Amino acid sequence: MEVLALKNMKDINAVLFDIDDTLFDSTTLAKMARMNAVKAMIESGLPIRNVNKGYSLLMKIVDKYGSNYDQHFDRLLETLRCKRDPKIIAAGIVAYHDTKLAYIKPDPDVIPTLIALRDKGCKLGIVSNGRSVKQWEKIIRMGLQHFFHTVAISEDIGYEKPNPKIFEAALEELKVQPRESMYVGDQPEIDALGANNAGLISVTLVKQRHKEPIPNKAAQPRLKIRKISELLKILKPGQASIQKESRTLNG
Amino acid sequence: MEVLALKNMKDINAVLFDIDDTLFDSTTLAKMARMNAVKAMIESGLPIRNVNKGYSLLMKIVDKYGSNYDQHFDRLLETLRCKRDPKIIAAGIVAYHDTKLAYIKPDPDVIPTLIALRDKGCKLGIVSNGRSVKQWEKIIRMGLQHFFHTVAISEDIGYEKPNPKIFEAALEELKVQPRESMYVGDQPEIDALGANNAGLISVTLVKQRHKEPIPNKAAQPRLKIRKISELLKILKPGQASIQKESRTLNG
Repeated sequence: MEVLALKNMKDINAVLFDIDDTLFDSTTLAKMARMNAVKAMIESGLPIRNVNKGYSLLMKIVDKYGSNYDQHFDRLLETLRCKRDPKIIAAGIVAYHDTKLAYIKPDPDVIPTLIALRDKGCKLGIVSNGRSVKQWEKIIRMGLQHFFHTVAISEDIGYEKPNPKIFEAALEELKVQPRESMYVGDQPEIDALGANNAGLISVTLVKQRHKEPIPNKAAQPRLKIRKISELLKILKPGQASIQKESRTLNG
Repeated sequence: MEVLALKNMKDINAVLFDIDDTLFDSTTLAKMARMNAVKAMIESGLPIRNVNKGYSLLMKIVDKYGSNYDQHFDRLLETLRCKRDPKIIAAGIVAYHDTKLAYIKPDPDVIPTLIALRDKGCKLGIVSNGRSVKQWEKIIRMGLQHFFHTVAISEDIGYEKPNPKIFEAALEELKVQPRESMYVGDQPEIDALGANNAGLISVTLVKQRHKEPIPNKAAQPRLKIRKISELLKILKPGQASIQKESRTLNG
């Protein structure tokens, strides 16, 4: 992997971010919300004893209908040959939403990092795939809506990552060039690939659960970090050790 | 108004309740949630300065499309000749839901009254118009789902108050007769009328904002109370003063 020359790091004028699993831990949120929904549905009469079994049936439904579908719990009752019981469905909805609200917090280093990046004069932005109102709800729930100079969501822009056009739309709004911009996301094959295609410096936030090798050379990130606050060290001139560390991570 | 003979009060074996504006103050909830939504939308760029003006435009939309419609905020932007802005819509949704969660608490005397009624051996139930999952969500959010022996929601039953059939469905489930049952609700023309039609003892929870005279003799409640806990005094043998008080309220 190519290691970015340090002299360029001083010239980063914009940092763009993915939302899910980058600014907050959406995988844990979704898992806990669904587990708690299944527990509450069982307590309300869902005819199944094992929470893990209920969760795995629910996940098959989520995979089949997509995560934005709004009747997962109705389908779960059908799968268990239950008649539609509004009490059980409502119990699932309440538990799901309560858990979601409890978990939708930015990772602890996100706000101090965004503040420090703005203090350095960086423009900040979001580039995210998804439905625009839903993604904005996440940004607002996290209290991050005032930090970003631009927010590009695929439903609004008409293109999804890894298509470079969604990145271009965000950069145009910020009036910065790709080469002076970083994009931080967790999924190399969507985030790093898209950022590379658009000519931005791609940064992958490496999650412990990502153990599979990156399949595709075009999806190799220019840098890897383990937490958002490492961006500050990378952007600080003369911090060669970070380069070494990211090289180690890449090796 | 006919005053119920005290000897009958000992023979009440079931007490059924309306939900909205009876177990919790849904009018205040809806008003505060919509006011806070408008404030948040203005803060996010809705092109209007006056919150009350925004609220009254929103209420026209709610009246036109009904309260269960899910795109009130989209229509509000259109009314103001704004293009659809997902940030503004999401800001409204988040503020609306946060306010709703803060307000959806049973009135303070509800839980102790339900416990005392069960201690006396009364069967408890809900008879409510509305969409079943939505009404169950309210019951569960208030933490009341374990108190009721039956819950009859119009969407499930196929009949709406004041149709007596929805009351009959609840009583059949409880195996009690109408004459040994009370129904407590806030709207005489829907709740007392329906309960009277079905032969239950109708009890109107009188709200300060209800100033208009009751239009229709058939919708006259048998009793009036100002708070749910007054049921306990009514049901206690020998509390003639409550009868006088309710007569005074009716006079």
